[in-house]
Amino acid sequence: MTQTVSINNNQRLQLEPLSTPERLLLGPGPSNAHPAVLQAMNTPPLGHLDPAFLAVMDEIQSLLRYVWQTENPLTIAVSGTGTAAMEATIANAVEPGDVVLVGVIGYFGNRLVDMAGRYGADVRSITKPWGQVFSLEELRTALQTHRPTILALVHAETSTGACQPLEGVGELCREFGCLLLIDTVTSLGGVPIFLDEWGIDLAYSCSQKGLGCPPGASPFTMSPRAVEKLQQRRTKVANWYLDMTLLHKYWGSERVYHHTAPINMYYALREALRLIAEEGVENSWRRHQENVEYLWQSLEDIGLSLHVQREYRLPTLTTVRIPEGVDGKAIARQLLLEHNIEIGGGLGELAGQVWRVGLMGFNSRKENVDRLIEALQQVLPK
Amino acid sequence: MTQTVSINNNQRLQLEPLSTPERLLLGPGPSNAHPAVLQAMNTPPLGHLDPAFLAVMDEIQSLLRYVWQTENPLTIAVSGTGTAAMEATIANAVEPGDVVLVGVIGYFGNRLVDMAGRYGADVRSITKPWGQVFSLEELRTALQTHRPTILALVHAETSTGACQPLEGVGELCREFGCLLLIDTVTSLGGVPIFLDEWGIDLAYSCSQKGLGCPPGASPFTMSPRAVEKLQQRRTKVANWYLDMTLLHKYWGSERVYHHTAPINMYYALREALRLIAEEGVENSWRRHQENVEYLWQSLEDIGLSLHVQREYRLPTLTTVRIPEGVDGKAIARQLLLEHNIEIGGGLGELAGQVWRVGLMGFNSRKENVDRLIEALQQVLPK
Repeated sequence: MTQTVSINNNQRLQLEPLSTPERLLLGPGPSNAHPAVLQAMNTPPLGHLDPAFLAVMDEIQSLLRYVWQTENPLTIAVSGTGTAAMEATIANAVEPGDVVLVGVIGYFGNRLVDMAGRYGADVRSITKPWGQVFSLEELRTALQTHRPTILALVHAETSTGACQPLEGVGELCREFGCLLLIDTVTSLGGVPIFLDEWGIDLAYSCSQKGLGCPPGASPFTMSPRAVEKLQQRRTKVANWYLDMTLLHKYWGSERVYHHTAPINMYYALREALRLIAEEGVENSWRRHQENVEYLWQSLEDIGLSLHVQREYRLPTLTTVRIPEGVDGKAIARQLLLEHNIEIGGGLGELAGQVWRVGLMGFNSRKENVDRLIEALQQVLPK
Repeated sequence: MTQTVSINNNQRLQLEPLSTPERLLLGPGPSNAHPAVLQAMNTPPLGHLDPAFLAVMDEIQSLLRYVWQTENPLTIAVSGTGTAAMEATIANAVEPGDVVLVGVIGYFGNRLVDMAGRYGADVRSITKPWGQVFSLEELRTALQTHRPTILALVHAETSTGACQPLEGVGELCREFGCLLLIDTVTSLGGVPIFLDEWGIDLAYSCSQKGLGCPPGASPFTMSPRAVEKLQQRRTKVANWYLDMTLLHKYWGSERVYHHTAPINMYYALREALRLIAEEGVENSWRRHQENVEYLWQSLEDIGLSLHVQREYRLPTLTTVRIPEGVDGKAIARQLLLEHNIEIGGGLGELAGQVWRVGLMGFNSRKENVDRLIEALQQVLPK
């Protein structure tokens, strides 16, 4: 080793080992991971082609099908956060020129519009005020007007706390010959989903919300109809990392190297999914619903009001209206720094108008509601 | 919650908590993580906009600059594995029609060709037999012929074990007015790199090799010259997740939400980088070199020969020629299942011809060489 250049030590920080405050994460995500999940994540890594690791991948695939209620063979975890899995649905399903119709009821609908455009789609959108949802009639009219190849909707809008009803939408999409793409980032594990029954063709999610796992490996699935569109592409998928024509050879029976999986994230995801299978996904949905109703009641009891009409409220994420004259940012900061509780602020149209309170996965427990309400009572102006 | 569909329990596996064999990972990566890194990764997650987490991100940025020996302001960790960081360099630097010249000396050069094509580049390539490297004269001739916008080279070819010399290449690229893009996946932390001195404009790496961290968060950097090209783009970056015009607002002073970072992976990466800063990056390079020379000698002592000419051999990854008549796959399998040691097989042109032995990061220690040699003596035919 000949080394003729001298070392630059400008950026050589001398640090202590990591030390962080213990927060209760009641924002829009991440939520706190289950202790057993953190423990699984800490297992020393295996190689990404080790037979013992391939078995872990197979278990993840089955359990993802279970929580999504689907039999889709192509059901995997993408090696990135939920946004990467979102991009994976678009990258694989969209060919340049495809008409993609996006229903925008909040921030993440807009993100789908931006992404689909980058993959060359002819993007059309329909919108509703943030906090509302589309009726089946509105969707029918839009499909008639735009005749899209793909209809993309957000099931659980993390920016508004509204739940888009999906019953009947799949039939509608079949009637108009288009694929149905659904964002389930804030619903998977916490909100009833029946992917196959509802005729959903493409879906993605994240690990750090309803599944109670740290972020970094993200659920992705494609129906056989969507796979058919993938197989008939005239152009390569415009994203190498997320190309399912390559990835399915790693996750499927061929086991061809594609990229080095985030091994420990998959350990964590397997444990999170295992815990849901143990609880039963319908019990997890029920738990989320019961605890959020307790949250709603508790918030109203201290004089706060909620942004979304009751029947469309998510069990995972609640938007609370910031009372007139209150500095929402200052309150959230006080909760964080004085009480170690994180809640979120509003995004986009709702910036400055609402707080966002998540009760997701391992965090969906009554004691967390009590802790939040107690802290809120201390920091809110009397 | 009205639930009219009945639950499908077909995929509801009943599993025990994770239990995996303890492997010594001496393949091309991942390598074993330092125990302190695993411990840091296990810290309960913070929110991705928590001031305490933003401080962790700043520390990562500084320490990445240190290990790469650069002062590039735009130096971050991408929320994915090394392949995602590779794609990030291409996605941000390439506009449709740009001439991208790729030097192919192995598998990962070919991957760059494929990726650059997907982003609309007019891709040209020059090749050498796998195991060899380009001379400065060969690169000059190719730049004269192709006049590219970007020259992309692999510093440490993980598929061959060869190290491409980079001194002088940056000057050459400036002479021809092109950007220099370098794959440092298998070199960062283990092989001397002086990004600024060598005039490198775009580089990426991974966490699970020379840095001794699990895979899942990946170093990425752009020089001010490369940022200038990014700012002058006529088209949006064709990849939302990896778009640095958005990501730099999260990593920089604006702190605008882009996606939820893989929090625990960043904890792990911070600790891995902290350990290198403590050791001193030049000491880490020296340690890798000393231990690999011990490996080479030990392999030759038991009658094996090495694929790459000595002066171009990597200190992180060694290709060992499979002796005539030996079933390379069977030997690797025996090492794994009987001795819990993982080594890699050949990729592409070298499939069936070589084993790949990594000594990277925390794993670059003499005792690991001894353990491998002892096991090899037991499994190799006498």
